[in-house]
Amino acid sequence: MSRIIQFSKAGGPEVLEFVDTPVRAPAPSEVRIEVKAIGINRAESMWRNDLYIEPVQFPAGLGYEAAGIVDAVGQDVTGIAVGDAVSVIPSFSMNQYFTYGEVVTLPAYAVVKHPPSLSFTEAASVWMMFMTPYGALIEDARVGKGDFVIIPAASSSVGLAAIQIANLAGATSIALTRTSAKRAPLLEAGAAHVIATGEEDMVAEVMRITDGKGARVVFDPVGGPTFTKLIAALSFQGTVYLYGALDEDPTPLPVLPMIARMLTIKGHNIWLTSGDETRRKAAVEFIVSGLASGALKPVIDRVFKFDEMADVHRYLEQNSQFGKIVVTV
Amino acid sequence: MSRIIQFSKAGGPEVLEFVDTPVRAPAPSEVRIEVKAIGINRAESMWRNDLYIEPVQFPAGLGYEAAGIVDAVGQDVTGIAVGDAVSVIPSFSMNQYFTYGEVVTLPAYAVVKHPPSLSFTEAASVWMMFMTPYGALIEDARVGKGDFVIIPAASSSVGLAAIQIANLAGATSIALTRTSAKRAPLLEAGAAHVIATGEEDMVAEVMRITDGKGARVVFDPVGGPTFTKLIAALSFQGTVYLYGALDEDPTPLPVLPMIARMLTIKGHNIWLTSGDETRRKAAVEFIVSGLASGALKPVIDRVFKFDEMADVHRYLEQNSQFGKIVVTV
Repeated sequence: MSRIIQFSKAGGPEVLEFVDTPVRAPAPSEVRIEVKAIGINRAESMWRNDLYIEPVQFPAGLGYEAAGIVDAVGQDVTGIAVGDAVSVIPSFSMNQYFTYGEVVTLPAYAVVKHPPSLSFTEAASVWMMFMTPYGALIEDARVGKGDFVIIPAASSSVGLAAIQIANLAGATSIALTRTSAKRAPLLEAGAAHVIATGEEDMVAEVMRITDGKGARVVFDPVGGPTFTKLIAALSFQGTVYLYGALDEDPTPLPVLPMIARMLTIKGHNIWLTSGDETRRKAAVEFIVSGLASGALKPVIDRVFKFDEMADVHRYLEQNSQFGKIVVTV
Repeated sequence: MSRIIQFSKAGGPEVLEFVDTPVRAPAPSEVRIEVKAIGINRAESMWRNDLYIEPVQFPAGLGYEAAGIVDAVGQDVTGIAVGDAVSVIPSFSMNQYFTYGEVVTLPAYAVVKHPPSLSFTEAASVWMMFMTPYGALIEDARVGKGDFVIIPAASSSVGLAAIQIANLAGATSIALTRTSAKRAPLLEAGAAHVIATGEEDMVAEVMRITDGKGARVVFDPVGGPTFTKLIAALSFQGTVYLYGALDEDPTPLPVLPMIARMLTIKGHNIWLTSGDETRRKAAVEFIVSGLASGALKPVIDRVFKFDEMADVHRYLEQNSQFGKIVVTV
């Protein structure tokens, strides 16, 4: 039997239920994993509320990320064997697959061998964290020397990874945070500049930093009413990658500035990279190489136990973490 | 002396003033034109209200387009001579240059010899009309066979040109219009499909036409509250080119659909093409070739006299035209 987490109706963390289910044999193209650690994502909180990018089919599992030991492989699977230490790339619908469980079955394409230098806790935290900004900043925007990248919600795991990836590419990172409480840790984490949006005039600061030109790229998981300020901070022909909706209030689209400066807004998610074999492999290579060289480093905020999952979601929703939340199993 | 139109404060059509000004010699890189016809654009109405993409420096001239006869050239100008029949590509700030006048001076890069088959009225109407959708549909989106292109405000000159350009590229045009009054003329003008948005469920119709996939491209000058429906009508990874703000009410940005389907919104204007020499020349070649073959045809709604310019602006702002409004001088 495998103890898994599912939910039968949308709601707060209290809807999460622990259920004992029989362990099933993997289908031909699936891999079964004995889970050691689970990386927690904001997506799972939206999913639990049935406010994510597709409707939930109840009862549903949760979870995009995990690391563990392979304990069975389907007959068509190559390159992965029982006993391998592996981790999971978010590249599936949570209506079909999930990672919140002691033993879980996943499509083989989503399962990779990570660098052996990573602990299971670290390995469970790297793929959403690094592949999401990789897709926007490296694959699509191709940022480099001379480019400024604004990173709202910079203390999130994906925000911290975006700082590292911008730096690795030679671009200049501008981290946004609400108060100056996280200024020192963000500078420590590699941010070239930090702006406390509740205490400073963000647009004026960006213009000062960029010599009046504005930033070529914004990598934003927030949206909401302050989105117009991000638009104002963009350079001519700049691009916002919008990959989250942390602010649930309506997001206005400032039409005339968009037209005048020929700005682009791209809805972004990890699927741009993880949904295509060639792009996924290029990303894995980039990230593994960065992890091996030390240019990319997972940042773990706090480690919980599997039994504490409801508390984990409560903690996640306080938006106060600095880096990734991981659960060990 | 040249009789020109200018305005000294923002406001309705009544702020337009006729002023006699001395004719000045062109600077080294300028061309002076005796104007025969002026193409009228929505941009000039927004400019007159000081609601355009840059602030007006008063007193200001108006006008992006004209056709006429060269009557003087600056010393550095090559390829254009006194007596040439020419037309003007919108590619400058109306704070610096304008076309509403009997004799006007323009930067040489904005002045081209058009096909001799065009009348002055036609020549004054083609550049904004065709170059704006060329930039979005051909240069950027590279539409072709199998692509569906939604064209809101399809009866405008740029909308009609977008239909022609989508057809020329082998894509399928879906024209939007408010009522079925313009259905027949839009089909006549080449639209593969016409949806009367006030009478039909636009999104359902687009899904029916596209076999449930949605359209890859929307070419929208409207914005406003109905923008969310355009987003809903896009295919996975589809793009909206937003090139106008006809609806002055706020435009909401639907964040989750943007992320789920990785949609793109690009603020668009003719400057993408007209502001770069190589791109401008490629566009002129494409458009001249299309005009010569008959694949592209200017559509003139109504021709006014220069003296009637205030009435021209009133007529423009009724949004009832079908094609381009032109003024003869």
